[in-house]
Amino acid sequence: MLRSMTIEQLSTPCAMVDLDRLERNATAMSERARRLGVRLRPHVKTHKCIEAARLQTAGGHAGITVSTLAEAHAFAAAGFRDITWAVPVALDRLDDCSDLARRTEHFRLLVDHPDAVAGLEAFAAAQSLRFEVLLEVDCGHHRSGVDPDDPEAVRVAASIGASPHLALAGILTHAGQSYHCRSRAEAAEVARHERDVMAAFAGRLRAAGISVGEISVGSTPTVTAAEDLSGVTEVRPGNYLFFDAFQAAIGSCRLDEVAFSVLATVLGAYPERRELVVNAGALALSKDPGPIHVDPSCGYGVVVDPSDQHPIAGLRVVSISQEHGVLHSDRPLEPSWQPGSRLRILPNHACLAAACFDRYQVVRGAELVDEWRPVRGW
Amino acid sequence: MLRSMTIEQLSTPCAMVDLDRLERNATAMSERARRLGVRLRPHVKTHKCIEAARLQTAGGHAGITVSTLAEAHAFAAAGFRDITWAVPVALDRLDDCSDLARRTEHFRLLVDHPDAVAGLEAFAAAQSLRFEVLLEVDCGHHRSGVDPDDPEAVRVAASIGASPHLALAGILTHAGQSYHCRSRAEAAEVARHERDVMAAFAGRLRAAGISVGEISVGSTPTVTAAEDLSGVTEVRPGNYLFFDAFQAAIGSCRLDEVAFSVLATVLGAYPERRELVVNAGALALSKDPGPIHVDPSCGYGVVVDPSDQHPIAGLRVVSISQEHGVLHSDRPLEPSWQPGSRLRILPNHACLAAACFDRYQVVRGAELVDEWRPVRGW
Repeated sequence: MLRSMTIEQLSTPCAMVDLDRLERNATAMSERARRLGVRLRPHVKTHKCIEAARLQTAGGHAGITVSTLAEAHAFAAAGFRDITWAVPVALDRLDDCSDLARRTEHFRLLVDHPDAVAGLEAFAAAQSLRFEVLLEVDCGHHRSGVDPDDPEAVRVAASIGASPHLALAGILTHAGQSYHCRSRAEAAEVARHERDVMAAFAGRLRAAGISVGEISVGSTPTVTAAEDLSGVTEVRPGNYLFFDAFQAAIGSCRLDEVAFSVLATVLGAYPERRELVVNAGALALSKDPGPIHVDPSCGYGVVVDPSDQHPIAGLRVVSISQEHGVLHSDRPLEPSWQPGSRLRILPNHACLAAACFDRYQVVRGAELVDEWRPVRGW
Repeated sequence: MLRSMTIEQLSTPCAMVDLDRLERNATAMSERARRLGVRLRPHVKTHKCIEAARLQTAGGHAGITVSTLAEAHAFAAAGFRDITWAVPVALDRLDDCSDLARRTEHFRLLVDHPDAVAGLEAFAAAQSLRFEVLLEVDCGHHRSGVDPDDPEAVRVAASIGASPHLALAGILTHAGQSYHCRSRAEAAEVARHERDVMAAFAGRLRAAGISVGEISVGSTPTVTAAEDLSGVTEVRPGNYLFFDAFQAAIGSCRLDEVAFSVLATVLGAYPERRELVVNAGALALSKDPGPIHVDPSCGYGVVVDPSDQHPIAGLRVVSISQEHGVLHSDRPLEPSWQPGSRLRILPNHACLAAACFDRYQVVRGAELVDEWRPVRGW
């Protein structure tokens, strides 16, 4: 039996998951999806943990979204049977894809280019396989996806539908531009646009005689802000389970809903320049610049009390190097901030910070209740 | 016997180490240290690999520098007996430190604060240990270290020397401000300052009757540019073994000396906006902004030909998200850049990019000759 441990006994720097907050975030998103009348296919890329994905899918549909084939393999091995790989397919990884297609009920691949369709089809034909394919649509993020206003997009969809080796499972988009929003109201506007683009494109496909099953949209900012998702069949938020300082700054959540933090130890205190050095640097927090469009002086995360996670006013992570975090205080340093004392930091971007760790310490309040091991690599 | 493999067979994204370049970088730095009359105590934080450290120390002194206790444990287990932990000691990790002090000939700890000295001394007394201690000096980086012009600095050194449980091994500094340099000439100036500060402080300590053994300076930009290190006993560069796009931009190396790269596959080509999407994002390149003070449009690394590593003019990594890298070209896309084709990227900051991977593919030209496993965690 595990000896009862508390936060004080943890070695630092370490990644902490607040299980109470995590469960609330999971439940709130499940309820939100139900209210909006869409299926929730959570993205597991933020946490990459089987245990966390089970909490996310407890309430309903068990389908998940992954960002890497390493995640797909690990989650398939753990019993997840309905997996969407929401990054355009890499044509040099098709052996992995055929393996996953055989081991699951649904393994959906993303394409946005006729050459990718051709490559996928040739491989599937040679292997006597049939791949389920989603056509990625660019709804304004301009990273990947077909232009829905270009007639070529309809032709690509038709070519998928016409292939005996590919099945058009539907269309998918990611409104990544929502990360430029400054408020929940702005994100709601992006969510409306995301839905409108997808509904209109689905209409054009249907008018061309192409059957469209899934209409999948994503992003934590848009899904947490969306008011009406008529015409959409599923949502794929991922970050919402952890949330982070960025999501709080743009209004996706409150700071007291952030379930992921990094525990750090003070290495040095420099009262004359009101600075502390802690042992959480770029390899523990990531170097994500955070919500600088909302707060140019945000630094590399929000510093909170190690016990109650209450934000410490005026204390900012002003710079980071590989293993050092430099914190600056607007007021004289507290006498309790001495070498050996601890602070907790809510990172700017939980997806990147979590990827710095090979295990998460799962806590309820001050008590350590579990340790989770995320999937790493590709 | 390992079947002969080539770069083409590697799965992407992956980290590649060019062994020819690595060996040249190791030899050049050993020769440089010898010419400058100082011992080389390489920092292993960039690569965190036993094999790479053996190459770095082949020519002489076998002492190394580490950034984490995880590195210290792994390198001690591999037979390294002289280790300096060049981050201010964390007072909640002293059990590890005593273990390492017992298992090595020299395990040196860094302090810069009377409270850390007191904590270290109390622990060592209770354990009947004697810790070797280096006093960290701030030579202008203003991250950690005592102010060498403050009389308090001499008192801290004296208190270490006077303790029966601590031995003052010497003084140490890291001129991290060299990363703001724009040229090798500027870095040479910082190197002069770094040496002058340390030599003067050592003089003041000796005048106060305090014996000073080691006078240790660091940073790849200053060591590669230094012209005279009289008064210094050892140098601790780390990045130089890999180098990276940042070091090339500020003149520490040429681009064709960079030994670390990330191999990526093209996922999508968008000729209308002259963009490519590759499968190397923030989790493969890190989100280090790079040498923006030299080139504001540097992006997230230098794109090179996958075979000859020749830089591809006008092709830049303009944005990255978790698993996507977006490349923009100044000229029309090459027809060979199609989904499934490959590119290689020299990351901005090799220390952070290398930490994204749990193995490195070691190559000579196009041939895969080894796979190295870096140490992870703390």
